[in-house]
Amino acid sequence: MPTLRVELFAGRTPAQKAELARELTQACVRVLGGQPSGVDVLFYDIERHDWATAGKLWSEPEKAPSTNS
Amino acid sequence: MPTLRVELFAGRTPAQKAELARELTQACVRVLGGQPSGVDVLFYDIERHDWATAGKLWSEPEKAPSTNS
Amino acid sequence: MPTLRVELFAGRTPAQKAELARELTQACVRVLGGQPSGVDVLFYDIERHDWATAGKLWSEPEKAPSTNS
Amino acid sequence: MPTLRVELFAGRTPAQKAELARELTQACVRVLGGQPSGVDVLFYDIERHDWATAGKLWSEPEKAPSTNS
Amino acid sequence: MPTLRVELFAGRTPAQKAELARELTQACVRVLGGQPSGVDVLFYDIERHDWATAGKLWSEPEKAPSTNS
Amino acid sequence: MPTLRVELFAGRTPAQKAELARELTQACVRVLGGQPSGVDVLFYDIERHDWATAGKLWSEPEKAPSTNS
Repeated sequence: MPTLRVELFAGRTPAQKAELARELTQACVRVLGGQPSGVDVLFYDIERHDWATAGKLWSEPEKAPSTNS
Repeated sequence: MPTLRVELFAGRTPAQKAELARELTQACVRVLGGQPSGVDVLFYDIERHDWATAGKLWSEPEKAPSTNS
Repeated sequence: MPTLRVELFAGRTPAQKAELARELTQACVRVLGGQPSGVDVLFYDIERHDWATAGKLWSEPEKAPSTNS
Repeated sequence: MPTLRVELFAGRTPAQKAELARELTQACVRVLGGQPSGVDVLFYDIERHDWATAGKLWSEPEKAPSTNS
Repeated sequence: MPTLRVELFAGRTPAQKAELARELTQACVRVLGGQPSGVDVLFYDIERHDWATAGKLWSEPEKAPSTNS
Repeated sequence: MPTLRVELFAGRTPAQKAELARELTQACVRVLGGQPSGVDVLFYDIERHDWATAGKLWSEPEKAPSTNS
């Protein structure tokens, strides 16, 4: 029954999402118990011009390189 | 003042969303009281490659048919 | 498969939530098709000191009476 | 560490989002303390056919003019 | 930078959440790349009287046993 | 019409939330136009045992001090 929402930068391949969904689901079952069929994972692609850290959109130039994505 | 967020598979028509928004709003008013103007409904279209159940994206082939959508 | 999140002021009874969940689910099935078992509804109780409209928490005195809840 | 999610009608310019992200971040730091680097802001563009108020999508004609956006 | 929101039934121990957060984070890094410091995981405990499946709260008696949690 | 959801560590005072709601609302109106009455702000208090960064709950000891909150 756990439902996971994953916000991540747009650009990941379907294969990456498929693999990540599988691993996240397995982790939930391993730690929480229950059945895989009870786990939902939803991906939200966020564009860099829609995500800001430290007050600056990731699409803006001169983003300080010290903050990792 | 209730705010509803509805995540659903992409592909529904505007007419379906209009009808659903109307019915959800009426249900809120009927059960909770208040005015329709206090109810907001937001739809989030989720693509099948962004939603996984049981660790598998709905866009992947051989989706087990037992899980309904 | 639709998942609904309902943010509402804290204080509704379990009976109201049960009735509302039932009606919201029926509306989804009626308009979108599918099975009731594919519909999840989650309620989030929001306290009045955690919800602001027009820049003012609903717990603050002198809330303008014109905005309905 | 505060994370802000902003749902707004689609159509705002990148410059508006950049400015808004900056101001929201500054407000968080000013009121809550902490560093700007701990503040994330995510924008969700919502189309008018995906947002209903009073049971009516904002894309539907004859929207009652009394509800402001 | 991925941010994960996990809605799950209330009642899990802090140790389970700590372990799950660690595993979810590792899965993100393994599949998406990036640094662990860029991954946030937030848990939302949902009470059974706040989650309905098939139009019925999980706190209601006679929950059909066929839907797994 | 913008709706802001703010996830922040539990423990802020009502006065801080009231002030922050006011400032966030003013920023929205200043940058986006529209009326203050169209802006909603919802606060979600997150306990430290429900928020993990880098795979570690903020309630766990030995949290690396370099990540600010």
